[in-house]
Amino acid sequence: MNIPRTSYPRIVIIGGGFAGVSLAKKLSKQEVQVVLLDKNNYHTFQPLLYQVSTGGLEPDSIAYPIRKILKDFPNFYFRLANVEEIDIKKNKVRTNIGSLKFDYLVVASGSKTNYFGNTEIEKYSMAMKTIPQSLNLRSLILENFEDALLTSDLNERNALMNFVIVGGGPTGVELAGALAEIKKGILPKDYPDLDTRMAQIHIVQSGDCILKGMSEKASQKAEDFLEKLGVNIWKNVRVTNYDGKTVTTSTELTFETATLIWAAGVKGATIKGLDSETFVTRGNRLLVNEFNQIKGFSNIFAIGDIACMIADESPQGLPMMAQPAIQQGEQLGDNLLRLLEEQPMTPFAYKDKGAMATIGRNKAVVDLKNIRFQGVFAWYVWMFVHLFFLIGFRNRMVVFINWVYNYIRFDREARLIIRPFKKKRKV
Amino acid sequence: MNIPRTSYPRIVIIGGGFAGVSLAKKLSKQEVQVVLLDKNNYHTFQPLLYQVSTGGLEPDSIAYPIRKILKDFPNFYFRLANVEEIDIKKNKVRTNIGSLKFDYLVVASGSKTNYFGNTEIEKYSMAMKTIPQSLNLRSLILENFEDALLTSDLNERNALMNFVIVGGGPTGVELAGALAEIKKGILPKDYPDLDTRMAQIHIVQSGDCILKGMSEKASQKAEDFLEKLGVNIWKNVRVTNYDGKTVTTSTELTFETATLIWAAGVKGATIKGLDSETFVTRGNRLLVNEFNQIKGFSNIFAIGDIACMIADESPQGLPMMAQPAIQQGEQLGDNLLRLLEEQPMTPFAYKDKGAMATIGRNKAVVDLKNIRFQGVFAWYVWMFVHLFFLIGFRNRMVVFINWVYNYIRFDREARLIIRPFKKKRKV
Repeated sequence: MNIPRTSYPRIVIIGGGFAGVSLAKKLSKQEVQVVLLDKNNYHTFQPLLYQVSTGGLEPDSIAYPIRKILKDFPNFYFRLANVEEIDIKKNKVRTNIGSLKFDYLVVASGSKTNYFGNTEIEKYSMAMKTIPQSLNLRSLILENFEDALLTSDLNERNALMNFVIVGGGPTGVELAGALAEIKKGILPKDYPDLDTRMAQIHIVQSGDCILKGMSEKASQKAEDFLEKLGVNIWKNVRVTNYDGKTVTTSTELTFETATLIWAAGVKGATIKGLDSETFVTRGNRLLVNEFNQIKGFSNIFAIGDIACMIADESPQGLPMMAQPAIQQGEQLGDNLLRLLEEQPMTPFAYKDKGAMATIGRNKAVVDLKNIRFQGVFAWYVWMFVHLFFLIGFRNRMVVFINWVYNYIRFDREARLIIRPFKKKRKV
Repeated sequence: MNIPRTSYPRIVIIGGGFAGVSLAKKLSKQEVQVVLLDKNNYHTFQPLLYQVSTGGLEPDSIAYPIRKILKDFPNFYFRLANVEEIDIKKNKVRTNIGSLKFDYLVVASGSKTNYFGNTEIEKYSMAMKTIPQSLNLRSLILENFEDALLTSDLNERNALMNFVIVGGGPTGVELAGALAEIKKGILPKDYPDLDTRMAQIHIVQSGDCILKGMSEKASQKAEDFLEKLGVNIWKNVRVTNYDGKTVTTSTELTFETATLIWAAGVKGATIKGLDSETFVTRGNRLLVNEFNQIKGFSNIFAIGDIACMIADESPQGLPMMAQPAIQQGEQLGDNLLRLLEEQPMTPFAYKDKGAMATIGRNKAVVDLKNIRFQGVFAWYVWMFVHLFFLIGFRNRMVVFINWVYNYIRFDREARLIIRPFKKKRKV
């Protein structure tokens, strides 16, 4: 890779997600050369992907060009690249566009969908971790209703209008709520010639509650909200397979559906060279110490979802969410500068700012450190926080306008099949 | 197709563009059954596609769900379908989702890119008639700059930063202007490690002026604007071939480029059954009389780009633009109702409202009936008119905000490679 060598030490960051970008910002205007590698030329605001899938937001309003984030920083380089291997002996990163030596390496490669080894589910289900995946889901949902109009086979029609979401975490809950609102507010108007009351939304949850990471109150309230919206919640049920037609579970329960959305888990997106048992711990994450250093290295770090930092408060590592990623990125920025000045690094301490999830219009649950609340106010807080963390003034404005419009008009206008999704299912 | 037969006469409209939608609106709340068929579930506002290609607007803000346009109309049916054939003897339309009888048929299938039979150009060039095509072009432009960073071969780098637009009509002119502004305002910031001054934008025009349909003054002024922006205009040059690498022309001029954008012409998108010499006239359009009836039929009509209506003022048919399409759609709506009441139909008379094109920031040309002007005021008029004709309040708001933002910040934030474009070129 033709990046000039200067007298500054070179820090290579793999990944432009929350962790990588907050680190990069910390390193701006410092005496270091920073090379950020990502397979996309944009940063994705993942918490709002479900709104892209359900036509509430345009994809471009939750994406932000990485080059623009870095544009005022001197000594910054971005390369659109797939990292293929890390050569830990030679301090080198190998990518599809060439190799690059590093002085310091920060792995911020994030996470990917965890199918727990089930290749059939992987093949036939829909995931929602990236913008193209979310757009595919948007197309599929809309195509299903168009197809439901065409069939006179009632079973097939029901399968097309049946949505099974696996996983009752924030993603599953937020998506289910949005689908339920579409069913209520949009389908009857858009498809007057279809009995859209037959559309069903299911959440299948292996544990005994939804929103497991949140308080019992939040979990219970979210369940109430979802039930009010007509979502069916199946607890203590584990999905065992999906062949593109029938969902089988650990119980006698089965579902006939054309759409299985897999939101049941993620795992660290490890990279060859750092994917051996020496480095990888539970959840396929890289074990790091309190300075985010990977075991055995003084110059290789991991931050965000890919990093597993075990502490007394988090014996299984920090949650794979935006907040730990942002905080670790910022702290590592400071620590790298300290390291370069031969100062001691500061151990990372996670400031848990709480968690929140929205279920629908005026319906959200918020757990902060000292206070928990649900309902309308929680919903406003949720929106404010998401707007605040979204990168870019234009994006905030566009998202804000969409939300106001959708709220006033009970609408979601981005219900567009821009690129049809080619179904792999058997039906 | 399972659409119920009622006592109302059935009008089938093929195509949800400007013509089809304005006709549909006219027929709302009338005693007719209307079936609108389109291969997309959205209406595309084609005049702004070039802004999608150049990252100025998100695709969703110039698309509008067709079902939403029709939602308050009783007796309206939309089907997502590819029309494959029209059976003019049996009054039947055959599509990929089944056949449908009609009492009245309106062909509003629009136009498609005309490569004048050159399959190599068709294969290697980029078109900009649909949203997916515009997104592909957006991806390609951005990928080219990423690739230009990687090569040390100067010829290849120049080819990657070289943009050749064939055709000096509004599409070509507006795209060239937008590319020139990107070159000036965005590339130096986004690619500090690339000599983006080397980027070149060419318009190749077979005739002796650009914006042929407009006044001489507008054409000359547009040329001045483009030259000020650094666009190279080649007049009286016809592109003869492009092999994915080299553009050859009718003169000795050749271009080495990774991106040829073909905006040199369109032709009617005819449909089997109505594609014989009996019906098709110049530009592959369907010859219609002053009531938009296709020759030999009293119940089959064509409107918009696909219709060629010859009049004294327009011996070659009306221009293939939004205005004739909208006006014909509205008029045909009235005429169909008259026909059903056995009243005589009114002949169509085109009200030429003028033409306009924008070249860039504060630079546009406007020809109205009695007045012509260029520059800043023309630019405001251009924006106002485009916002006015855009369907949907949300779309208008989002486009407006993007424009204000882009104007103040000299920016285009939708420079996102959401789906990489797989290059067919040989380099």
